[in-house]
Amino acid sequence: MPRQLVECVPNFSEGRDIAKIDAIARSVAAVPEVALLDRESDADHNRSVLTFVGPPDAVAEAALRAVETAAALIDLTRHQGGHPRIGATDVVPFIPIEGVTLADCVSLAERVGHQIWNRLRIPVYFYEAAAKRPERVNLENIRRGQFEALLAEMPALLERRPDVGEAACHPTAGAVVVGARKFLIAYNINLGTADVAIAKRIAKTIRFSSGGFPCVKAMGVPLASRNLAQVSMNLTDFEQTPMHVVFEAVRQEAERYGVEVVGSEIVGLVPKKALEMAAGHFLRIENFKPELVLENRMAEAAGA
Amino acid sequence: MPRQLVECVPNFSEGRDIAKIDAIARSVAAVPEVALLDRESDADHNRSVLTFVGPPDAVAEAALRAVETAAALIDLTRHQGGHPRIGATDVVPFIPIEGVTLADCVSLAERVGHQIWNRLRIPVYFYEAAAKRPERVNLENIRRGQFEALLAEMPALLERRPDVGEAACHPTAGAVVVGARKFLIAYNINLGTADVAIAKRIAKTIRFSSGGFPCVKAMGVPLASRNLAQVSMNLTDFEQTPMHVVFEAVRQEAERYGVEVVGSEIVGLVPKKALEMAAGHFLRIENFKPELVLENRMAEAAGA
Repeated sequence: MPRQLVECVPNFSEGRDIAKIDAIARSVAAVPEVALLDRESDADHNRSVLTFVGPPDAVAEAALRAVETAAALIDLTRHQGGHPRIGATDVVPFIPIEGVTLADCVSLAERVGHQIWNRLRIPVYFYEAAAKRPERVNLENIRRGQFEALLAEMPALLERRPDVGEAACHPTAGAVVVGARKFLIAYNINLGTADVAIAKRIAKTIRFSSGGFPCVKAMGVPLASRNLAQVSMNLTDFEQTPMHVVFEAVRQEAERYGVEVVGSEIVGLVPKKALEMAAGHFLRIENFKPELVLENRMAEAAGA
Repeated sequence: MPRQLVECVPNFSEGRDIAKIDAIARSVAAVPEVALLDRESDADHNRSVLTFVGPPDAVAEAALRAVETAAALIDLTRHQGGHPRIGATDVVPFIPIEGVTLADCVSLAERVGHQIWNRLRIPVYFYEAAAKRPERVNLENIRRGQFEALLAEMPALLERRPDVGEAACHPTAGAVVVGARKFLIAYNINLGTADVAIAKRIAKTIRFSSGGFPCVKAMGVPLASRNLAQVSMNLTDFEQTPMHVVFEAVRQEAERYGVEVVGSEIVGLVPKKALEMAAGHFLRIENFKPELVLENRMAEAAGA
C-alpha cells in the first residue's frame, strides 16, 4: 500500500510559558510514527502552533493527546493575548499530504471531534471542509466574540450550538474548532516601491473575494524594515491556482504601475509539488510530470 | 545515520534479445535494498541501460552481479550495433545521490573494478572522477577503435593497458569501463525555428568546450518530426551550472536571432534539487533553502 500521510497544525492559547508548550509538544512527539516538524510561539499573541505529520491514525491520536494536555495546562479564564481564540486548543486542522484525500481528512476531523467531546467534555465545532453548516466554513464566524462571548452565548443561542457535545463551554478549556483543509502556502511578493496603495490594489485584483483567482487570499501591507510594499498572500489550493500563476499575475499588475517585483518569500513550508509545477512552467518543460523527478521515482519504487 | 544512496547506470551491449536483458535486470533486482528505477533498450544501438539506486554496498553488489550475468550471456565477437562499445558490460558509472560524496563513489568504483577482475577475469579501465590517468577521464578515449581494435592493441600498446587486470581482453566479454560522476541531466531546449544553424551557434556559445559554461555539453540538432531546431544538452553538474542559468542563456541567445524558445524536455530523470533551484530563481524566493520544502523537512525528521 502506498504511504499515507496527514499533516496537523493545531493552535494553542499559550505562547509565553515554555514549560507548558514543551509539555504539549512532548505529548505529540511521544506518539510512534508522528514527526514534529515545527513549533512556533508568539508572546504577543500568547499563542503557539505545532506542525506534525504521520499516518492518519497516529496523527489523530497525537492531536487528541495534545488537546488533552492543553486542557490540563491552559486556563482560558486567565488568558490574554492579541489573537482571537475560543479554546485552550483553539483550532485543529487536518491536511492531506500523501495518499489521502481531503474527504479522508474530514472523516479524521469528525472522529477526533467526537473523541474530544467523549473523553474531555470539550464541545467541538467543525470548520472548512469539515463544516456541517455553511456559515461555519469560515473560522472567523465560529470565533466571533471569542471565549468570553461564547461562555454566555453557547447555551443561549441556537446558532452557537456546537456540532458535537452539550451547549456549554468547558469551564477552563472553552471549545475547540476541528476541521480539514488543503495545504496552505503563505507566500509574499515584495514590490520595488514603498507605496502600499499599489500593493493593496494588486491584492484586490488577484484575490478571490474581489473577483480574482480562486484559492487566493491577498492583502497589501507595508514592509517597514525595508521601505517596501508587499502583497501578502495565502494560497489555499496551489493545484487549482499555482504559485507561478500568482507570481506572473502580480508581476504583470505591478508592471502596469511601473513597479518591479524585487523578491518573494515563503512563510513556513511549501510542498515540493508546488515548486515542481513552477519549475516545469518557467523552464517550459513540455513533458513535465512528477515521475521525471528522481526522488519521486525512488519513493515509488520503495512503495511498490 | 542519514540515508546513503548511490545510483548506478550501467550500459550493456544487448538491445534486441529481451530474455537476456531481463536476466541482467533480474540479477540487479534480486539484491535486497536495491530499487531498479528504469530500463531502456535500443535495438538500433543494440544496447540497454539500467538505472538503479540503493545503499552503496548493495548497489556495488548489484553492479557486480549484472556484469557477471552480462558476461555469461553476451558474446561481443557476435555483437553489432550503432553505438561504440568495448565490453558486454560497456560502462558502469556510480553517482552520488544522498549522503555520499563523489569521492565515496570513486572508492566504490575501485572496489567493484577489482572485484570484476578478481572474480570474472575481465580487465577494467577507470574513467571520469575515478580515472587514474588524465587521458582516461574522457570515456571516448578509452573506447577508441572499440572491442575489435582493443583485442589487438591491449596486449601490444602500453597506453591501452587496463587499470586493473592483465593486458588482454576477455575473449567474449571484452573489457569494462567503471567510474564515478555527478548526476547528469539530459536537457533539450526547442527553438521556434527549423534553422539548425541557429541551434548549433547557440550550442557553441553555451558549451564549455568552446568557452561557455562549465559543466555544459551542447549541440544543435534538427527535431525533424516537429520541423524545429533543438539545443540538446548534458548538464554534468547542475549545482555548478544550474538548469535555470542554462535556460535563460539559451533564451537570451535565441532572442538575438529573433527566435523564441518554444519548449524544453528532460530525458530520463531530474533530481528534485535542480527543480527547487529553478523554482527558487524564477519565483525570486529570497529565503529559499531546501528546508522550506515540506517533504525535505519530513525526510529530515524521519532521519533524526
